[in-house]
Amino acid sequence: MTLAKRQWSSTIVSTANEKSKDGREGKGKAPIRSGPRRRGAALLSAGSASSAGASFRFTVRHTDGKARWGRFETPHGPVDTPTFMPVGTQATVKGLTPEQLRSVEAHILLGNTYHLALRPGDELIASLGGLHRFMAWDGPILTDSGGFQVFSLADLRHIDDRAVVFKSHIDGAILELSPERAVEIQENLGSDIAMVLDECPPADADEARLRQAVRRTLIWAERCQKAHRRQDQVQFAIVQGATNLALREQCARELVAMDFPGYALGGFSVGESPEAMHAALEPCADMLPRDKPRYLMGVGRPEDLLAGVAAGIDMFDCVLPTRNGRNASAFTMDGPVKLRNACHRRDPRPLESDCPCYTCRTFSRAYLHHLFHAEEMLGPILVSLHNVAFYLRLMAQLRSAIAESRWEMFRQVCLARWRATT
Amino acid sequence: MTLAKRQWSSTIVSTANEKSKDGREGKGKAPIRSGPRRRGAALLSAGSASSAGASFRFTVRHTDGKARWGRFETPHGPVDTPTFMPVGTQATVKGLTPEQLRSVEAHILLGNTYHLALRPGDELIASLGGLHRFMAWDGPILTDSGGFQVFSLADLRHIDDRAVVFKSHIDGAILELSPERAVEIQENLGSDIAMVLDECPPADADEARLRQAVRRTLIWAERCQKAHRRQDQVQFAIVQGATNLALREQCARELVAMDFPGYALGGFSVGESPEAMHAALEPCADMLPRDKPRYLMGVGRPEDLLAGVAAGIDMFDCVLPTRNGRNASAFTMDGPVKLRNACHRRDPRPLESDCPCYTCRTFSRAYLHHLFHAEEMLGPILVSLHNVAFYLRLMAQLRSAIAESRWEMFRQVCLARWRATT
Repeated sequence: MTLAKRQWSSTIVSTANEKSKDGREGKGKAPIRSGPRRRGAALLSAGSASSAGASFRFTVRHTDGKARWGRFETPHGPVDTPTFMPVGTQATVKGLTPEQLRSVEAHILLGNTYHLALRPGDELIASLGGLHRFMAWDGPILTDSGGFQVFSLADLRHIDDRAVVFKSHIDGAILELSPERAVEIQENLGSDIAMVLDECPPADADEARLRQAVRRTLIWAERCQKAHRRQDQVQFAIVQGATNLALREQCARELVAMDFPGYALGGFSVGESPEAMHAALEPCADMLPRDKPRYLMGVGRPEDLLAGVAAGIDMFDCVLPTRNGRNASAFTMDGPVKLRNACHRRDPRPLESDCPCYTCRTFSRAYLHHLFHAEEMLGPILVSLHNVAFYLRLMAQLRSAIAESRWEMFRQVCLARWRATT
Repeated sequence: MTLAKRQWSSTIVSTANEKSKDGREGKGKAPIRSGPRRRGAALLSAGSASSAGASFRFTVRHTDGKARWGRFETPHGPVDTPTFMPVGTQATVKGLTPEQLRSVEAHILLGNTYHLALRPGDELIASLGGLHRFMAWDGPILTDSGGFQVFSLADLRHIDDRAVVFKSHIDGAILELSPERAVEIQENLGSDIAMVLDECPPADADEARLRQAVRRTLIWAERCQKAHRRQDQVQFAIVQGATNLALREQCARELVAMDFPGYALGGFSVGESPEAMHAALEPCADMLPRDKPRYLMGVGRPEDLLAGVAAGIDMFDCVLPTRNGRNASAFTMDGPVKLRNACHRRDPRPLESDCPCYTCRTFSRAYLHHLFHAEEMLGPILVSLHNVAFYLRLMAQLRSAIAESRWEMFRQVCLARWRATT
């Protein structure tokens, strides 16, 4: 463990003399485009920003109130929106194979820049052909910028306009993350959608702190945009400002002027009440261009997804389906099911009778109950699979509801069913 | 926790007043044949032992030296022998779905009577349609008698000819297992092959202790045979006697006179040297009828399987593939691969290049190395899958080798490859 401050690069986990079996050096810069030729690469003409835009076309196909049914094209295939992205923090959605994710119709995954840069290192992943090949996921991937994790997981040491300095939660090394390095990591990973580095203050930050965070977020967005090279990747900007709508407005206006291909709302679900978040979503979504995808970061519970979609959000991510799945808590259209509870001990019924996932097609609640009490890995696996399936089925159903102009009815029915059981 | 001695039944984990959602009582005897109509049930005429024998036909198709290529028919489908049974102790092969087990051509699984009777209880499993339906495995299942686990896992309190009394490793309850109860549990589970209750002394037991164990094993075998009712299940007897061939001979002779449909060698791999076990296998196998399946319990490493097959053994089971898989240790035809080792950090090659399993078709050694260092569940899952695939592929290859009369060459080549790397 070293306490010397150094650049945050994959060399922190490789030794200077390490050599891989194929003779490549463990240290040093890996070429950014060392990966295999990717699907859709033919669509891209080298070095032209406008052609990159063409392979990332976003289309709103239908609106119903503020809710939007759309499609976002990426070099790794299309994503129908509104969409939910299962979280693959460390290059794996916990407990699930890519094959299982496909079986429940996952279309796009999220990867965490902070974790992957620390371990195994973004340059190592680049040298092995990029994140898609590394984790064997050939669909689209979005990576965050690492900022949120630096603020939430790491021991923060110093922040100024240049960069954020922090202590790794893995080995205590002192590292720094600048906007340019956040871009570099994500280009090494080769995600389809990269996020700009932002500053995300806690929900209880005072206005001065919020203003500072917005100011820095704007400076960093500009530097990320300037540093961005990779033509088969787009960058989304992030609007900060917590629940202060005037600050959000200012932040959004300046970012929109920079003309990013997509916009995210950051700084939600960081400690404020669900009501405060829900109330802010529609005005915040209204601040963003209609013809660009809108992403609500790190959200949320099924009811939060409905609130987001109603406000005009197109993309979501959250660890809840897999985290709750590992803890025996299942999502169903009739509300949560706690599989450890004694009432399931002899229950021959599936977890959710009309769910087409492997878990529900194959096993009883009694069996799942047994697996958790016996501390068998298969319990977390099967309930994570069901929960991801539940989220993705909810998104598919709400897309149909928007497309058929019955969104508000769909939303009300869902909320009524969930409320009846909680 | 109660310390009152009581019958070892599923009621130890259910409360007297518990009622399941469908109104069935938690307590009381479940009907033994409450399960769904099973595949092959049409083959069985009610109550006739000889017709049960017909649906469990064992055929030796070809021999090469002592090695035998055969087929064992069961009500849940045929098993080609020599076969390896992945271990599903608690109604799950750790970390793997039935679908994944099918994908690597598992044909028959083993379940542990001791664990299942303690939790969730054999009568609960019976009330849910039996072990096949409970764990969603529609292929054949063999269950052990619980004896070995009582001697190895539980706190043994008393043993006499009537029963063994022990303290549960789960909740400390004092329980007893008699030959009749071992039969009842396995009939409740509904396995295709049940094992008689035996006494398995440690490898360092003196001759008096061994004689006592053989004597009791013989008495218990007879009582198990007498207690056995279920026509869609066969009972295998177990030969004890450690490495004392005279005792083994006596035990085998008396069991063969009882005419069981199959015979197992117990008391191997319990602490004796591999050489001592290997030397005893051929004489012990020779003591058993040629026209009945022979099962070497709890064995073993790939080299032990080769020694067993060379001696004329038809069936094996062992936790090694999944246990080692969870610990990042992979089996390959070029010897073990420890995936945590730094040499795999940048290795783009699959774990085993000519292995057709999902893990080897899909992921690099570098990725598997990353998963274990990041403590991700997917590492144990993927390497367990590969290891089970390795064992089953080895068995398929050696069956072909026996069928084509090139068994000895096959065995020598395997041993030479494994020795070269260890």
